[in-house]
Amino acid sequence: MARAQLPRLSVLRLGHRRERDKRITSHLGLTARAFGADEVVLAGEEDPSALETWKSVTERFGGSFDCRYEPKPMAWLRSSSKDGEATIVHLTMYGQPWREAITEISTDKPAIVVVGGTKVPSEMFHLSNHNVSVGNQPHSEVAALAVFLDSWVGPIDDPSRFEGGLIEVVPSTRGKIVINHEEE
Amino acid sequence: MARAQLPRLSVLRLGHRRERDKRITSHLGLTARAFGADEVVLAGEEDPSALETWKSVTERFGGSFDCRYEPKPMAWLRSSSKDGEATIVHLTMYGQPWREAITEISTDKPAIVVVGGTKVPSEMFHLSNHNVSVGNQPHSEVAALAVFLDSWVGPIDDPSRFEGGLIEVVPSTRGKIVINHEEE
Repeated sequence: MARAQLPRLSVLRLGHRRERDKRITSHLGLTARAFGADEVVLAGEEDPSALETWKSVTERFGGSFDCRYEPKPMAWLRSSSKDGEATIVHLTMYGQPWREAITEISTDKPAIVVVGGTKVPSEMFHLSNHNVSVGNQPHSEVAALAVFLDSWVGPIDDPSRFEGGLIEVVPSTRGKIVINHEEE
Repeated sequence: MARAQLPRLSVLRLGHRRERDKRITSHLGLTARAFGADEVVLAGEEDPSALETWKSVTERFGGSFDCRYEPKPMAWLRSSSKDGEATIVHLTMYGQPWREAITEISTDKPAIVVVGGTKVPSEMFHLSNHNVSVGNQPHSEVAALAVFLDSWVGPIDDPSRFEGGLIEVVPSTRGKIVINHEEE
């Protein structure tokens, strides 16, 4: 599936704890951005530093990527999924295997990919259109999000996706090649 | 590629910082285990709690997975790669795109996948047989490891891989199904 064909893709991080989850949540938002999401929505404890990290990386590395805090994530999910407006995909180690699930998920509608924290309300399993597992072994919500998005969204081939950044990394088999557009 | 055909697969975490990296490193080791590695090797600051987490998950969820601390990771890599005994794959956002790289990486020899921390010695770029990037955008070493292993190792189809655990999660489209083998 080519990324350009997919309508708006959001990632919702449930149950963030400012101290304990700081870096995991930060990595989660950056993973959402790098693998093709249009926005990350933070729920749980408010954390301006997470939003700042995501904004700063977007400014430096390009593209448009939104982030915001959502105080009432379940209400937002309920209203987003009303009348089937958006597809809700809940990533959980208890769900259906992702290789099987991705063939069944609609790509015609906006999608919200929900990534749980420690305590996910049981309503989540019923509100979501798909409960999807990336393996049924415990590992990491960051790993699950990356593998799911990479499989579902596919390669981020559109060169305009990360346009306008100040810094650009050029792939290389040896060493680091970085173009600094600020100096141009 | 079927997992069973690959010789020993190790993941080396460089530059661990006990306080700051605690949860990222913990997730990294669990990701290594879930995506088919045989062991995780910790370098940087010593951290018994990381090793305990990995051992505890392996006991509860099955399979055999080794973990240990390595005080001299670069020396270990040098001796492991001597005479081409093991293949060293270094994951870095500066590297060659992974979809291209995985076709070139030998699957006949033991492999060590190196995941950097904040400061990776420049020697790493030359010591490694492959410098591989999972995208050239900043995201997460956990995401990079998961996507790389999923692409390179392929599905973990061997049912014996996670045998002998106390807990087993059964995939489900709704809710949580867990078999507790302790009670059997």
